[in-house]
Amino acid sequence: MSLTRILAVARGDEPADLVLRNAQLVNVLSAEVHPADIAVADGVIAGTARGYQGKSQVDLDGLFVAPGLIDAHVHVESAMVPPREFARAVVPHGVTTVVTDPHEIANVVGLAGIRFMLEDARGAPFTMFANASSCVPATHMGTSGAALSADDLATLQSEPSVLGLAEVMNFPGVVFGDAAVLAKLQAFRGRVIDGHAPGLSGRQLNAYAAAGIESDHECTTIDEAREKLRLGFTIYIREATNARNLRTLLPLVTPENERRLCFCTDDRIPADLLEEGGIDHMIRVAIAEGIHPITAIRMATLNTAEHFRLFDRGAVAPGRRADLVTFADLQAPRPDRVYVAGKLVAQGGRMLAAASAASAASPAVTNTVHIDWSKIDLTIPARSRRARVIGAIPDQLITEHLTMDVRRDNGSAVADPGRDVLKMAVIERHRASGNVGRGFVKGVGLKRGAIAGTVAHDHHNLVVIGADDRSMLTAARAVAEARGGQAVAEGDKVLALLPLPIAGLMSDLPIEQVRDRMRQLTAAARGLGSTLHDPFMAMSFLALEVIPKLKLTDLGLVDVEKFELVPLFLED
Amino acid sequence: MSLTRILAVARGDEPADLVLRNAQLVNVLSAEVHPADIAVADGVIAGTARGYQGKSQVDLDGLFVAPGLIDAHVHVESAMVPPREFARAVVPHGVTTVVTDPHEIANVVGLAGIRFMLEDARGAPFTMFANASSCVPATHMGTSGAALSADDLATLQSEPSVLGLAEVMNFPGVVFGDAAVLAKLQAFRGRVIDGHAPGLSGRQLNAYAAAGIESDHECTTIDEAREKLRLGFTIYIREATNARNLRTLLPLVTPENERRLCFCTDDRIPADLLEEGGIDHMIRVAIAEGIHPITAIRMATLNTAEHFRLFDRGAVAPGRRADLVTFADLQAPRPDRVYVAGKLVAQGGRMLAAASAASAASPAVTNTVHIDWSKIDLTIPARSRRARVIGAIPDQLITEHLTMDVRRDNGSAVADPGRDVLKMAVIERHRASGNVGRGFVKGVGLKRGAIAGTVAHDHHNLVVIGADDRSMLTAARAVAEARGGQAVAEGDKVLALLPLPIAGLMSDLPIEQVRDRMRQLTAAARGLGSTLHDPFMAMSFLALEVIPKLKLTDLGLVDVEKFELVPLFLED
Repeated sequence: MSLTRILAVARGDEPADLVLRNAQLVNVLSAEVHPADIAVADGVIAGTARGYQGKSQVDLDGLFVAPGLIDAHVHVESAMVPPREFARAVVPHGVTTVVTDPHEIANVVGLAGIRFMLEDARGAPFTMFANASSCVPATHMGTSGAALSADDLATLQSEPSVLGLAEVMNFPGVVFGDAAVLAKLQAFRGRVIDGHAPGLSGRQLNAYAAAGIESDHECTTIDEAREKLRLGFTIYIREATNARNLRTLLPLVTPENERRLCFCTDDRIPADLLEEGGIDHMIRVAIAEGIHPITAIRMATLNTAEHFRLFDRGAVAPGRRADLVTFADLQAPRPDRVYVAGKLVAQGGRMLAAASAASAASPAVTNTVHIDWSKIDLTIPARSRRARVIGAIPDQLITEHLTMDVRRDNGSAVADPGRDVLKMAVIERHRASGNVGRGFVKGVGLKRGAIAGTVAHDHHNLVVIGADDRSMLTAARAVAEARGGQAVAEGDKVLALLPLPIAGLMSDLPIEQVRDRMRQLTAAARGLGSTLHDPFMAMSFLALEVIPKLKLTDLGLVDVEKFELVPLFLED
Repeated sequence: MSLTRILAVARGDEPADLVLRNAQLVNVLSAEVHPADIAVADGVIAGTARGYQGKSQVDLDGLFVAPGLIDAHVHVESAMVPPREFARAVVPHGVTTVVTDPHEIANVVGLAGIRFMLEDARGAPFTMFANASSCVPATHMGTSGAALSADDLATLQSEPSVLGLAEVMNFPGVVFGDAAVLAKLQAFRGRVIDGHAPGLSGRQLNAYAAAGIESDHECTTIDEAREKLRLGFTIYIREATNARNLRTLLPLVTPENERRLCFCTDDRIPADLLEEGGIDHMIRVAIAEGIHPITAIRMATLNTAEHFRLFDRGAVAPGRRADLVTFADLQAPRPDRVYVAGKLVAQGGRMLAAASAASAASPAVTNTVHIDWSKIDLTIPARSRRARVIGAIPDQLITEHLTMDVRRDNGSAVADPGRDVLKMAVIERHRASGNVGRGFVKGVGLKRGAIAGTVAHDHHNLVVIGADDRSMLTAARAVAEARGGQAVAEGDKVLALLPLPIAGLMSDLPIEQVRDRMRQLTAAARGLGSTLHDPFMAMSFLALEVIPKLKLTDLGLVDVEKFELVPLFLED
């Protein structure tokens, strides 16, 4: 970038590389829409005055131009593709910058995983910033593939695309001053620190704020969001695939407080990203619900840029990056042309370039499923009649903590599909330890067969749920042989398989194919009787030992409310 | 500051150092006023929930508490006292943070002057941030005491209180890509860069924005401010002693654009600071003119803090500095208690501590008037009849470019008080070069005697205006003997004198005494016939060669519109 040239273009003394003529500029700085000719030089906006000339000119004939959209918080891994391919899904929807927390891959392969994500994103037609994953592992009641200390995280600060510290989910650790947690905060002092404190309130929330944590994306009520806003948190309103807070929180927004509100998607599956969109979808919903279009667009651009101190973007103004989207309807903006650093990269909902080259993942990232099958035994000796059973609740991350009599067969406790009690196992898959957590789950609905997968928050061990051990082993082995993935099996037969060889979390296929395979998996599971909307999504949270009430890790059953491991069987 | 202790206080597990109970918190984050008990620990706000206990407690009984006020741009030297004493004037008015451009002292003694200001401020009960003075000297048509290159300015970046680059007044240099100017911008890339571009518009203004300049405080019309706002400039609305833009610009403010508007005072004399106030006065005027009180207070707190990326202040919220003001009337906030980092420093409009110790200025800063009087000759040989005459305009910085026949006496051109044509001389005072610029000025009104002073923007040479050479020399020598200052003389008698030994710009007296002496000077000048509201203020700008139309420096008359030195006499 040559400032001398940009100045010459701005003055009108030299032609721009590109001029978007006759635009209606959505000016998020002055909160106006006004006519402009947008001159771009060296990827930067040189000027927005009328009458610029360019080597390339596009007459927009009154189309609107807004800044490229920014996602304040997203786990790319939830799209089950690496960043470069993720970009293919979100850029046509106008998203030109995302801030990611590579928390999932970090739990599998640590810093190497985070660095893989950063490296993969460098080839992408968007900007991916990352925050350093603060809670790896989430707890010590499950076995992760990695642990990241404050010193480990600090090594990421030299990466230009690392902004700060990612969602500090260990809020008790913050509030009560746990030394390891404070060391992480200290290491990132002066940088942006993201929060994650669902339901935290009162003095404990004051402490969480006093610690320097600056955002929260877990608000589920207006009152919760208002209290956090008062204490200085920027609120990222979230509309994830499985946690939808947008319509609930929109009544909070006023012209006087919107500057501290942003949009984020957190976790979105490929079908949602491709078909519904993400941040663009949130803008359309917000406007439909009565938010002024400029406000809605600000919450997806300037507010996010300013929160993350990204002063080079977030608005269409001289000196900023030429990340731009065009659209025809201000009441329902649907991005048409998408420019990244002045280059047209998508139009009409499609990327202009062909699918990206396969990600250059190293073996450290693609060879992460390590299981010594000789050590794996799924049988559950029936120690007593009465057992703890996980009660899955449709479309919720929390579970019930049930106690039930379990069926016995030849001294073993077994699944009882007739009563919808299935067997569940969590097989440690990072270091071939042979750890297997075993238990029962109600509410998944399989009448026969099994489902298995290596996406299992946050430790991402191999989870398998089934009606019989043979189907369970078939599904589990299929997933392991694919170096990670998700599978449906019955008896010895694999009915559907989505390989996820990148850390056992992400595919190396185009995202459209991932979406299609996910549909095949769901259909196959439904064919076996599953009643859940998305049984794989449900399964991926049944092993997450930080969300109440009863969960299963490779170390066994976790009573989350007591925050301790508990035995499967109760005394008779 | 111990985070562990702040967390304990925030949780309510340990008593705070101070609790302000029963406050009505003016919450600039959520744009609400709500009840709060404000707990302070180690100078930081630990919490704002109800019910905190403290070692010290103040029951505010429903008084309002707002964040300490921030002045976005001020030349401390205009108050004619150094920073520590300046604080005594502004802190009782609720100002706890200022961003200064030490441009005046930098023109006299360069980096040593800037470092003196930073050092002096360290002892003050407020925070003074500084931006590096970008335009020293202003031009080469006058002789300054120093010149600061990009490399010189870059040395200031290691000072923790230096934020960025101060007002880049050389806007043609920016727009047309002058290499020395671009080097300064480059040196401060990534930091805040203040602008100063009165009247600049259109493509040239786009270029000025594209160069990375982020603010402007020179707007005098709504249209000018709106254009700058659209292009990304933060607008500091200014209410200086001699440039009052507040009421003109207030109609620009809306809830949707106020986040990019701040308040600044730029230049205020002691009487205004002590009696009218500064930023607090602007808040009261804004509210009286119909701006919502929370908006007005935001423009003086959060907006300024965010613009300068001072995330540790600007709001009353956990983790931020306990810079607080209390007041009784939300419709006309008049600061009562002022806390700086949790310490009560002013109450009821008065500082609690006694006057500060005299500033520890070094000889480099207190010995700056160097004149070899043997070289100084004020006589003007009458080369012809017709001469250029500066036409002073009451209360304006611009002058008229007059041509008049001048009175002659014995081969010399002389003052003609009967027609209000006075003699003016600018005596170089930095390096005893003997340079004297000589000319005539109309509109000052002295019937006899002379006024002289070393405050003369931006080079701060010794300016003297008088009815006769003897009075002029008496005034000029009195000022020089005081190591700088302002004086009124008649014949051999000094009628009034304000010594300004610190760089010839600032007094070492308490600011109240400076105010009183300034009144004596004005009264003395009026007694000699001056018709100007403030003849010394007027004189200080008659030598400023960057403001049209005709000015006098030590090198001679400057036609500012032509931007060149011109002869005093025209051909007959």
